[in-house]
Amino acid sequence: MPVIIVESNKLDVDKKREYVKNLTKLTAETYGLPENTVTIIIRENEAENIGVAGNLLSELEE
Amino acid sequence: MPVIIVESNKLDVDKKREYVKNLTKLTAETYGLPENTVTIIIRENEAENIGVAGNLLSELEE
Amino acid sequence: MPVIIVESNKLDVDKKREYVKNLTKLTAETYGLPENTVTIIIRENEAENIGVAGNLLSELEE
Amino acid sequence: MPVIIVESNKLDVDKKREYVKNLTKLTAETYGLPENTVTIIIRENEAENIGVAGNLLSELEE
Amino acid sequence: MPVIIVESNKLDVDKKREYVKNLTKLTAETYGLPENTVTIIIRENEAENIGVAGNLLSELEE
Amino acid sequence: MPVIIVESNKLDVDKKREYVKNLTKLTAETYGLPENTVTIIIRENEAENIGVAGNLLSELEE
Repeated sequence: MPVIIVESNKLDVDKKREYVKNLTKLTAETYGLPENTVTIIIRENEAENIGVAGNLLSELEE
Repeated sequence: MPVIIVESNKLDVDKKREYVKNLTKLTAETYGLPENTVTIIIRENEAENIGVAGNLLSELEE
Repeated sequence: MPVIIVESNKLDVDKKREYVKNLTKLTAETYGLPENTVTIIIRENEAENIGVAGNLLSELEE
Repeated sequence: MPVIIVESNKLDVDKKREYVKNLTKLTAETYGLPENTVTIIIRENEAENIGVAGNLLSELEE
Repeated sequence: MPVIIVESNKLDVDKKREYVKNLTKLTAETYGLPENTVTIIIRENEAENIGVAGNLLSELEE
Repeated sequence: MPVIIVESNKLDVDKKREYVKNLTKLTAETYGLPENTVTIIIRENEAENIGVAGNLLSELEE
């Protein structure tokens, strides 16, 4: 039943596919559970909705 | 003050309305609190942002 | 794959059992998915870790 | 390493900028940590994805 | 209905009280909503459950 | 700024150390960011606070 929520900015679909494959494998091995018990949610936040060190990420990127 | 976050894929607005009504009632009864203390957030994730058993949900659906 | 996180205060185990049963049924029906795709996490927060209307819940309860 | 997730509805970018600045300052002071350790994520939920007191927020606003 | 979840390590109760008061005020002003619509959850994670830059926080603190 | 929250049951500290190291590396490579931008929170939920397929995990384990 591990559930993993990843909060970050945009990611292209090929990277998502690779990441989900590898993160599921790593998590299943760590917890000693079958891979089909692992659920992952990738959250792609807008840069203007992320604050780092007091600034919006959208402004740090300008 | 119960706060409930539901992570899933798309849902049409009529189902959301029914779900929020019934989930609020169930939660208020369970905790012995008035219905106006219950907040629900429904998160509609893209299928390519959900990983199940090592695969993107968008590919399992193909 | 619906994942539901419930944030609230303490709940006794009999109520948790009932709640998980009913919430799973309601969610499976809403999304048109089998019950074994639903995962629920109940978070029992200390009253001093909950803020409501600017006050700690632990002080409102005194 | 404080991470703060704010769930609410829409907010314009000038308010986000002010909020992130002030929330970072408040959090850094509270925890006695430098401001560059604070990460904030602002979640702008659609009104039809928020349930309050058993109703969709989108219907309460009508 | 703003809901704010703060993930960090331990905090003493006097700091929690001050933080909840000030964070509620800041959030209510930002969103133009009354203070009694704001809910805050403070999560005090064990240092061995926090990973920073590839290390457990419990080991960085040693 | 990737922030990863892992919801599961208990894990011993040696496994946490390995997991955080490997998950940080995987995430930094995926997003093309330095490892010191990755924060991980491991949540160890009690089995009686996890619902799977309509049952408490604590009862499935009995």
